[in-house]
Amino acid sequence: MLFHVTITVRMPHEVDPNKVKQLRERERERAADLQPQGKCLHLWRVAGKSANVSIFDVESPAELHEVLESLPLYPYMDVEVAALCRHPGLIRATD
Amino acid sequence: MLFHVTITVRMPHEVDPNKVKQLRERERERAADLQPQGKCLHLWRVAGKSANVSIFDVESPAELHEVLESLPLYPYMDVEVAALCRHPGLIRATD
Amino acid sequence: MLFHVTITVRMPHEVDPNKVKQLRERERERAADLQPQGKCLHLWRVAGKSANVSIFDVESPAELHEVLESLPLYPYMDVEVAALCRHPGLIRATD
Amino acid sequence: MLFHVTITVRMPHEVDPNKVKQLRERERERAADLQPQGKCLHLWRVAGKSANVSIFDVESPAELHEVLESLPLYPYMDVEVAALCRHPGLIRATD
Amino acid sequence: MLFHVTITVRMPHEVDPNKVKQLRERERERAADLQPQGKCLHLWRVAGKSANVSIFDVESPAELHEVLESLPLYPYMDVEVAALCRHPGLIRATD
Amino acid sequence: MLFHVTITVRMPHEVDPNKVKQLRERERERAADLQPQGKCLHLWRVAGKSANVSIFDVESPAELHEVLESLPLYPYMDVEVAALCRHPGLIRATD
Amino acid sequence: MLFHVTITVRMPHEVDPNKVKQLRERERERAADLQPQGKCLHLWRVAGKSANVSIFDVESPAELHEVLESLPLYPYMDVEVAALCRHPGLIRATD
Amino acid sequence: MLFHVTITVRMPHEVDPNKVKQLRERERERAADLQPQGKCLHLWRVAGKSANVSIFDVESPAELHEVLESLPLYPYMDVEVAALCRHPGLIRATD
Amino acid sequence: MLFHVTITVRMPHEVDPNKVKQLRERERERAADLQPQGKCLHLWRVAGKSANVSIFDVESPAELHEVLESLPLYPYMDVEVAALCRHPGLIRATD
Amino acid sequence: MLFHVTITVRMPHEVDPNKVKQLRERERERAADLQPQGKCLHLWRVAGKSANVSIFDVESPAELHEVLESLPLYPYMDVEVAALCRHPGLIRATD
Repeated sequence: MLFHVTITVRMPHEVDPNKVKQLRERERERAADLQPQGKCLHLWRVAGKSANVSIFDVESPAELHEVLESLPLYPYMDVEVAALCRHPGLIRATD
Repeated sequence: MLFHVTITVRMPHEVDPNKVKQLRERERERAADLQPQGKCLHLWRVAGKSANVSIFDVESPAELHEVLESLPLYPYMDVEVAALCRHPGLIRATD
Repeated sequence: MLFHVTITVRMPHEVDPNKVKQLRERERERAADLQPQGKCLHLWRVAGKSANVSIFDVESPAELHEVLESLPLYPYMDVEVAALCRHPGLIRATD
Repeated sequence: MLFHVTITVRMPHEVDPNKVKQLRERERERAADLQPQGKCLHLWRVAGKSANVSIFDVESPAELHEVLESLPLYPYMDVEVAALCRHPGLIRATD
Repeated sequence: MLFHVTITVRMPHEVDPNKVKQLRERERERAADLQPQGKCLHLWRVAGKSANVSIFDVESPAELHEVLESLPLYPYMDVEVAALCRHPGLIRATD
Repeated sequence: MLFHVTITVRMPHEVDPNKVKQLRERERERAADLQPQGKCLHLWRVAGKSANVSIFDVESPAELHEVLESLPLYPYMDVEVAALCRHPGLIRATD
Repeated sequence: MLFHVTITVRMPHEVDPNKVKQLRERERERAADLQPQGKCLHLWRVAGKSANVSIFDVESPAELHEVLESLPLYPYMDVEVAALCRHPGLIRATD
Repeated sequence: MLFHVTITVRMPHEVDPNKVKQLRERERERAADLQPQGKCLHLWRVAGKSANVSIFDVESPAELHEVLESLPLYPYMDVEVAALCRHPGLIRATD
Repeated sequence: MLFHVTITVRMPHEVDPNKVKQLRERERERAADLQPQGKCLHLWRVAGKSANVSIFDVESPAELHEVLESLPLYPYMDVEVAALCRHPGLIRATD
Repeated sequence: MLFHVTITVRMPHEVDPNKVKQLRERERERAADLQPQGKCLHLWRVAGKSANVSIFDVESPAELHEVLESLPLYPYMDVEVAALCRHPGLIRATD
């Protein structure tokens, strides 16, 4: 099932820059893992913000929570989740 | 260029039900037109809401405005627009 | 899967009182239908508000949307949905 | 009497990780205590959030406050309380 | 048990002035009924607003809801409820 | 004259626990002082929150400010003030 | 005592233009009455808004409420009240 | 002096479409008048919204108010005003 | 020209108390300077808040910014500015 | 294409004043670079705020993001972006 996830990263300025760099690298690796597994169907960055929008395809809310909690930057994330359905106006399922 | 568009339809209860039905049908036709043109890449309904999320691929903000304004339900819509960029964590462009 | 649904009913004052009465009766019947089907696990009224909180157990966000949209008062509802998971602190699953 | 309680945990990033771990363990133990006593009827985690929703059955607002204040993570919690009543549309009391 | 109740009356301007007058008279009568019963311990108007603050002493959230719903202006009210406890700093219980 | 005062205490987690304990004791003493003087007519705790609601009877806004500023926890308080009047629906002045 | 009052007028578009004109004339007359009485010390319009800011000098919150309620446009006003004190940084009382 | 003005037009759906059309035409004429006078330096439409952003160069807040109030759609506008100054980072004044 | 300025001081609790005391003294001196110059026409404290309301009479938004930026507490202030005009209902200009 | 960008700088008070000074100087240099390149068409400071409004002319949302991210103060900025179109009421394109 599909979920629309908006993630805003709020990194406190006191966090050590090296730690931030490491966290961001590990975050990128984790995101790269999730894509071939088909968990993360889409991923976009919002222009001008430390935020992204993604579409997750998971078995359950529990799996969604597990995936999000596994992200290295999770402790610094503000996450908004919306459950999605197929739109009746869609002429051809693309996801 | 890509835009993330969240549309909430707020139909006033006094509008004649027949007019609402017609508007919704014309809205669906218009949405069906936009998809093969590649203007509307994705379209999802938000569960429990009279709202949808879509990803538009247009030439400019002006084209986006033109497309949205052409929707039959536009006068009843509350529209939020965010400009999107490719995410550095994306391993394969899917859009 | 479980969803937490908060429904606030905003009935415009111009709606004919007889129609309101009918809608509320049909709403109650529909709610009574959903409970034995196991779709609506819990249902509470919020004190002092024309609002309720419920826990739905459905197959998918699409089924949740279908159920909510089938409620006679749906056009007058403001609905908030949150996907739920089992809490690690729960000692015995009750739902 | 029933109360709907939404708890969001906002753990400041400077808190020592060991202390956080200890707090979370003690929190889980405390939650486990409250369930057999029948104080905490239901407990769910909100997907994607460091938040949970629970239904408390207590004698009075004072008892609710006492229970919440006894939680080890209370100093880091943002708590929202709503008093609940039986819903007229409920066909069989489940709580 | 005590509840803090903030009521804001939002009377739509189209309602017939005679009906408004009648509703306000009946509201005052109802409020006068509730006071000797000890249900409504305190009642104040907020300066400059069509709003009041009251302290209710009721058996349960259900009784609070019943009392509020019985107010003639209830359909036009926006109601906020907070459950109260005795404050540890209070030297002599006055309520 | 009467003022409705809602006080939320936001104690930063870095403040030394002994200092917090001392502040809370002095706060309680100060609240105990104000009650026999008739400055603080009512005082309740909001269930589940580090917040209280009180009714002050003072000579002027200046006196209210002086009293609030004299509270030991004042630097950590978020204070909301509303001026109150006697309600026309009140049948017997209790304050 | 001094109160800072922000008034926003929200005139519904369906109100008959002649009635609006009359209401505005009577409003102006009422405002003119209040100024020589010294009740309304200052009155400014906020640029670009149907809103004004005023400073009232009244005996009590009750008198403030009475004055505001006597304004012909009161049913269409959204009013925000703040109690004011003399500022310690003021070198010469001007009000 | 410069003001940044954000105007959102909220046209109630009951207004007669012919009247709306006339108002919009007169609005456009009025906007065309203001530009050669140098009152309105810049004017942009916000994509996806019935809103625009403009930069006004006027003698005083009073003149700004007069200009805005003279717009035919003013009764349906929600206007936000911010006073602007030259930015120290600007290398060449363009306005 | 007149501006309505609401200033809320948010002093972080970690700032050294001596520094805070010094800043507040210098703030008072600066406010005292501005009054005889006629820049700050009125100044009030909001009861119960670390906030004040003032009316500035300056040549331009740039001068307003310069004056506000010169206040010793400026780095800790949250400032809201509204441009004011003479109110048509004012019978005698007092500012 | 044009974007309206509102930037609010929130500098935490613990940052070393020398570092802040250096950051602001580098920010000014970067802003000076962007103007001759035609990326930043307009730039204004909002009176009374640590905020500015600018109009960017860029090839794509990605370029906008790159430019904003290159600003030395970016980690301390709260950025709001709106896509702009030519306004139909504009009589002569000035940008």
